[in-house]
Amino acid sequence: MKKNIQVILGCDSEYEESDVAVFGAPFDSTTSYRPGARFAAAAIRQESYGIETYSPYLDRDLADCRIFDAGDLELPFGDTNAALAMIEDFTGKLLEDGKKPLMLGGEHLVTLGAFRACAKQYGDLRLIQFDAHADLRDAYLGVSLSHATVMRRCFDIAGNGKIFQYGIRSGEREEFVFAREHTRMRKFGFENLAEDLEAMGDAPIYFTLDLDVLDPGVFCGTGTPEAGGVQFGQLMEALQLVFSRNVVAVDMNELSPPLDQSGASTALACKVLREILLQFSPPYGYRFSPE
Amino acid sequence: MKKNIQVILGCDSEYEESDVAVFGAPFDSTTSYRPGARFAAAAIRQESYGIETYSPYLDRDLADCRIFDAGDLELPFGDTNAALAMIEDFTGKLLEDGKKPLMLGGEHLVTLGAFRACAKQYGDLRLIQFDAHADLRDAYLGVSLSHATVMRRCFDIAGNGKIFQYGIRSGEREEFVFAREHTRMRKFGFENLAEDLEAMGDAPIYFTLDLDVLDPGVFCGTGTPEAGGVQFGQLMEALQLVFSRNVVAVDMNELSPPLDQSGASTALACKVLREILLQFSPPYGYRFSPE
Amino acid sequence: MKKNIQVILGCDSEYEESDVAVFGAPFDSTTSYRPGARFAAAAIRQESYGIETYSPYLDRDLADCRIFDAGDLELPFGDTNAALAMIEDFTGKLLEDGKKPLMLGGEHLVTLGAFRACAKQYGDLRLIQFDAHADLRDAYLGVSLSHATVMRRCFDIAGNGKIFQYGIRSGEREEFVFAREHTRMRKFGFENLAEDLEAMGDAPIYFTLDLDVLDPGVFCGTGTPEAGGVQFGQLMEALQLVFSRNVVAVDMNELSPPLDQSGASTALACKVLREILLQFSPPYGYRFSPE
Amino acid sequence: MKKNIQVILGCDSEYEESDVAVFGAPFDSTTSYRPGARFAAAAIRQESYGIETYSPYLDRDLADCRIFDAGDLELPFGDTNAALAMIEDFTGKLLEDGKKPLMLGGEHLVTLGAFRACAKQYGDLRLIQFDAHADLRDAYLGVSLSHATVMRRCFDIAGNGKIFQYGIRSGEREEFVFAREHTRMRKFGFENLAEDLEAMGDAPIYFTLDLDVLDPGVFCGTGTPEAGGVQFGQLMEALQLVFSRNVVAVDMNELSPPLDQSGASTALACKVLREILLQFSPPYGYRFSPE
Amino acid sequence: MKKNIQVILGCDSEYEESDVAVFGAPFDSTTSYRPGARFAAAAIRQESYGIETYSPYLDRDLADCRIFDAGDLELPFGDTNAALAMIEDFTGKLLEDGKKPLMLGGEHLVTLGAFRACAKQYGDLRLIQFDAHADLRDAYLGVSLSHATVMRRCFDIAGNGKIFQYGIRSGEREEFVFAREHTRMRKFGFENLAEDLEAMGDAPIYFTLDLDVLDPGVFCGTGTPEAGGVQFGQLMEALQLVFSRNVVAVDMNELSPPLDQSGASTALACKVLREILLQFSPPYGYRFSPE
Amino acid sequence: MKKNIQVILGCDSEYEESDVAVFGAPFDSTTSYRPGARFAAAAIRQESYGIETYSPYLDRDLADCRIFDAGDLELPFGDTNAALAMIEDFTGKLLEDGKKPLMLGGEHLVTLGAFRACAKQYGDLRLIQFDAHADLRDAYLGVSLSHATVMRRCFDIAGNGKIFQYGIRSGEREEFVFAREHTRMRKFGFENLAEDLEAMGDAPIYFTLDLDVLDPGVFCGTGTPEAGGVQFGQLMEALQLVFSRNVVAVDMNELSPPLDQSGASTALACKVLREILLQFSPPYGYRFSPE
Repeated sequence: MKKNIQVILGCDSEYEESDVAVFGAPFDSTTSYRPGARFAAAAIRQESYGIETYSPYLDRDLADCRIFDAGDLELPFGDTNAALAMIEDFTGKLLEDGKKPLMLGGEHLVTLGAFRACAKQYGDLRLIQFDAHADLRDAYLGVSLSHATVMRRCFDIAGNGKIFQYGIRSGEREEFVFAREHTRMRKFGFENLAEDLEAMGDAPIYFTLDLDVLDPGVFCGTGTPEAGGVQFGQLMEALQLVFSRNVVAVDMNELSPPLDQSGASTALACKVLREILLQFSPPYGYRFSPE
Repeated sequence: MKKNIQVILGCDSEYEESDVAVFGAPFDSTTSYRPGARFAAAAIRQESYGIETYSPYLDRDLADCRIFDAGDLELPFGDTNAALAMIEDFTGKLLEDGKKPLMLGGEHLVTLGAFRACAKQYGDLRLIQFDAHADLRDAYLGVSLSHATVMRRCFDIAGNGKIFQYGIRSGEREEFVFAREHTRMRKFGFENLAEDLEAMGDAPIYFTLDLDVLDPGVFCGTGTPEAGGVQFGQLMEALQLVFSRNVVAVDMNELSPPLDQSGASTALACKVLREILLQFSPPYGYRFSPE
Repeated sequence: MKKNIQVILGCDSEYEESDVAVFGAPFDSTTSYRPGARFAAAAIRQESYGIETYSPYLDRDLADCRIFDAGDLELPFGDTNAALAMIEDFTGKLLEDGKKPLMLGGEHLVTLGAFRACAKQYGDLRLIQFDAHADLRDAYLGVSLSHATVMRRCFDIAGNGKIFQYGIRSGEREEFVFAREHTRMRKFGFENLAEDLEAMGDAPIYFTLDLDVLDPGVFCGTGTPEAGGVQFGQLMEALQLVFSRNVVAVDMNELSPPLDQSGASTALACKVLREILLQFSPPYGYRFSPE
Repeated sequence: MKKNIQVILGCDSEYEESDVAVFGAPFDSTTSYRPGARFAAAAIRQESYGIETYSPYLDRDLADCRIFDAGDLELPFGDTNAALAMIEDFTGKLLEDGKKPLMLGGEHLVTLGAFRACAKQYGDLRLIQFDAHADLRDAYLGVSLSHATVMRRCFDIAGNGKIFQYGIRSGEREEFVFAREHTRMRKFGFENLAEDLEAMGDAPIYFTLDLDVLDPGVFCGTGTPEAGGVQFGQLMEALQLVFSRNVVAVDMNELSPPLDQSGASTALACKVLREILLQFSPPYGYRFSPE
Repeated sequence: MKKNIQVILGCDSEYEESDVAVFGAPFDSTTSYRPGARFAAAAIRQESYGIETYSPYLDRDLADCRIFDAGDLELPFGDTNAALAMIEDFTGKLLEDGKKPLMLGGEHLVTLGAFRACAKQYGDLRLIQFDAHADLRDAYLGVSLSHATVMRRCFDIAGNGKIFQYGIRSGEREEFVFAREHTRMRKFGFENLAEDLEAMGDAPIYFTLDLDVLDPGVFCGTGTPEAGGVQFGQLMEALQLVFSRNVVAVDMNELSPPLDQSGASTALACKVLREILLQFSPPYGYRFSPE
Repeated sequence: MKKNIQVILGCDSEYEESDVAVFGAPFDSTTSYRPGARFAAAAIRQESYGIETYSPYLDRDLADCRIFDAGDLELPFGDTNAALAMIEDFTGKLLEDGKKPLMLGGEHLVTLGAFRACAKQYGDLRLIQFDAHADLRDAYLGVSLSHATVMRRCFDIAGNGKIFQYGIRSGEREEFVFAREHTRMRKFGFENLAEDLEAMGDAPIYFTLDLDVLDPGVFCGTGTPEAGGVQFGQLMEALQLVFSRNVVAVDMNELSPPLDQSGASTALACKVLREILLQFSPPYGYRFSPE
């Protein structure tokens, strides 16, 4: 007898036959203000009950994809190094098996674990970040591994000019100074995204979507909401630009279900996830086309 | 001694002297995900305390209208056929008495009861639907009477080309295929609304407003919020277009007060109701002008 | 690769090897006031993450049991007859396969489906009900299948003197009159429970636990809370009495997660479920001992 | 056509034929911490939908009583003197018309308005107060009319030894000193209530029930919850003692619906109100029996 | 040992050395519908923990300003006159000491106290109001001092043509009639703001920001949300226009934390406060430049 | 000018003149299920506004004590070792200065930091724990520093027979086995507390109060509520027993304000804190009386 337990929207394939593997990384120990992102993957899984697999935007259906929902990693709260190592290992395993990884945070720090695994696999890896926050501090309250330092740690791996930041509207003065030197930061919106992507050609891309890039008006269920964000339609267009390129791994993070009384933020996250999967997964996803 | 119990905003006339009769249809038994719309009419009634009767948009005041608040029907939860029959009977009674009916849902299925009554009364009836969801399934989990099938059931009555759908952004692939053949569906917004209405002339119109046509950013208090909806200003303009025509009955549905912690969605529903009443009720409403 | 998706506390056996099968019946369409019980099984599944499998009350551990979590039935909202038939069929299947069924509602009406299946299987079946409400109406708003009539419908099957009601403290005058004639009702608490059970000997028992039998002080997350209920310790003792007898099927219902902001009611439900499983499942459960 | 708008539980008689008149006093302007009691009467009215008119405790039914629900007074927030005057006038009108008044607060200060009206009508009036707070300050932040001073103001009218306080467990040192001299205060519970009542004989009694006398465990929906309160069963017994005497007016106050997420406190308030009405209203209420 | 207790964002200077003094006015006694604004200043103080002192919009940092957080006034609830007098006195004291006052409401009525103090200090004072509501009633439920009359009372002081209202979209018919005669009212948005300010030259300005001028989509945490408001970006631009002029005092009001489940409204209020302080305080603020 | 910012109830003395120092330890990074305890100290500080300094239970007043509120430590989330070191240092500093420390958690792990400091200062230190959970695991998800291991780590310092546990009703089987050998554990309540204390004589005691020892019926605002806990009155009596002995340091932890919608749990925590301070602080506290 099969268990009829809810999986993530449309992710009903077995591992072996799947092209994409989705997994949760329920970790938010370094969140400095309002924790709760640890519950995001479970909430998305439950909310999936009410969401259609068909996208009228793309005229595509998840029924045509083969995606595996691996469930959630069991990460130790309070031991950041151990948690990141587990994420790195699991992502590495997926890459070895030829699966495209899609991780659901958790707080933004989880990106570091997955990015490490991808950087080992892919040379010349770019990181595209949609976010309200620069996340470029060198340390936060004396701690070097934090949701507020995650992009700085990725920079330590990727190096100058490989990190592309969009929608940024919050940070310390020093972070913006740092960005001018070392990253490509576009404040407030998606200005230059098309040109930046064009310039990347077929280079492999790690794409991290911090959902707080959205305006709190459409996405209030997050720990540090920042007024003045992008609208849903703008995000949808930007996603189409990103996935027209060679994205090799994705994460989506910072949904905090306890702050989402109406459920609208969780529903939005499901919908964004559907649109991402419909552009990331075969048969629809990007195909490398060497000339 | 008169009871000082709150009625719906500005609806303080007696039945006999009234032009419009408002009533609640507190039913949400077929809601597949998050019920709660059953409390909408009661919440609108209570919220009415804090809303002005004057509209600075229209420069009109409900003090000039004669509207009756009939209170709520007592519908049996769990017996869909019986509930729809009660709605049909009550709407029919209002029409017989020469009252213009305005029903407050409840889930969207309540529309079917009122539409049946109107279709008996009026030949060549059009149905205009503002909604995020197509609601065109033939059955949902094996059930033919459901919030997800309501427009299909209305189609069974109205026939090809009589149902006009605006703002639709969610549904199964099959619903969109069906719509291409049998209804006039405009995805995402109000494109072509003016032209569509122009073409209707003086034909009688049943107008159903599923409030989830609005973007969850301005209306999160609903069971299945769908990102990417229309803005409040767009809805206000679209309403003015609709009520420039021969609307004979109205319903407004899918407000779910338990999901509206801040009260902003309920307040918005009250305000939309005020604007509708100020365009639907004499002395302001449409007048048939035979040439 | 195994999916790491949360199952109900300690219910990690496969179907074939299991003694007890737990399943959710997410249905609350006839709930007359505040729906939400449909989310109970999913909430218990998620909350199970934080609950120990060991009971210091019983000094037993679920690690020693073999229990299967079947997930949730997909019940059609709004079609009561169909939903009950699906519950009846599924319960019957479990009984056929030699599994002891434990159903998680949902509203109390789901009991009728499972009770029908058990009554077919077992002759001379008793029904023990812990509940705040008599649920003995013949009809509710004209509907004969309702959470408020469920015990009356079970009575139609079981007959005079076979239904034992404890903790009852709410109902219409007529229900209490009916009970005096046809059921064994103990108002407010568990008076006489030990004697009543003693008299049953080895007769098979269907046990239905409406969690609102508890005082809202310790269990507020339910649709129709009734002050003056039993305390947690009293329930624990009563459960030990019940499970010292030949219980053949169990249901637990009326947890409504949307009304449980703090999570304390869901946690309590998990704990009660643990204690029930540790007394219902081999190797710990009742053994028939023919003299 | 009759409006089918919810009235308070069982209060469906017209004014002229009624014995008891219930009215709301939605005022909480002097609440120093968390306002919200203004919504109590409206919430009780709506919640009445889900409550039975029959009491299994008393084996009585509100169907046998004739009670009028007057709705809510429209009290000006921020003008305490005006609000109290309106309450006094309205209560006086009811007394003149031979109706027994039952007021639903609002914050506790509303008692002063009704008590003034009763003190004019009845000589030698006693005041029985169930409350967690002494409410005996002479002024609060320099203001003499406040929820924290209301019993002191009633004392100014009633004089020494006429105010009986039960359940008190919070206040300033000075209030407890004052009580020793001027009122009969029983700390923490209902000790001596029976004897105190016995001594009153047939004297007229104003009874004010601040619901926060209950333990927050069973009644958390109030602005200043005080741990260590009385249990529901104790309150029920105490009410039976009080209503075995000549109660001439009643108020019940300090339910704060915005603090009652689960609805359990509002449901409890409805139930307490039912039990009060079934002991206060003819044909069940106290009858003066001159020897 | 220094107490490490949170002050308002960046307001860590001592009084003597400060240029701007921020204080809370926790009063909402006249709020007619949903109170809660009394908690705004405390919530902003706590939320300040999570907000950056640097503005990427202005490229300025509060670290460069000298601002004092005076904490909250202790205002008597229920005694409107006394509360307004305390606000007036405190504001007057700040002006005497050469501090620029910034008051955090509270309901909108608190403006009257501060405006009175400023009007005594400055001749020919203008009042600029951003608000959804006209607040021009002469009385509300018979009370002349109310959140709904505050601008009328300011008008009594300032006289014809000195009050400039923007964003107004709610009120009684009479208020809009009054505005046509006596104030400069711009409905719905900021039309003409630049021209109006241009015409003011160096005249002193009292600026009152009722946060409900914002669309409830981005700011739902307020007692009377009005759909159809201005967007965050529009407000930011309008603030830059206002603070390019001689603003002598500021208040920001009507945030109601109990209605802000997600915290997004409180976070927005903090951010708006930061942007205001960075334009109001030396070294950044307006400098009077006599020709 | 003095800042009028709320401190903890009655803690308005300066450090130098104080006998007791209260401080917050806002840390909950290892919380495995529902975080939020980090907000406890701030919530208690704000809630203190509504609580009396006088105790009618003890007839004592905090106005007679000299207590300092140090505010909150700034602990790095995600770096457990660093956070514990900061707590240990701060506690050590207080002890050096002759202050009696009272720490407000945070999750229960914070106890380890303070206990380390006290164990350095006092020989033969006992630890009395009131708690629902044994907290005796050796590791949790591979992590040795966790809320679930804190008593095991304290045991590593204190040794056999020095840890006294009361109210325990949850844990793994192994923890209960461990306790039988190494600690004095009393399950479910306070059995033997008086005798255990009697036997301690004048030995120094570290007292840790995990508020989840209380029944969730009276204290639901905590991350892992466990049904079947002690009542408020029982806790009050047990506190009087504990503070009749030589308590040298105290902590109170695991209040989680985000789970306390009604505020009743936070209010209870304030009240318990008041009763503790009135028994811990001079002039009321225990005095060492060598014979």
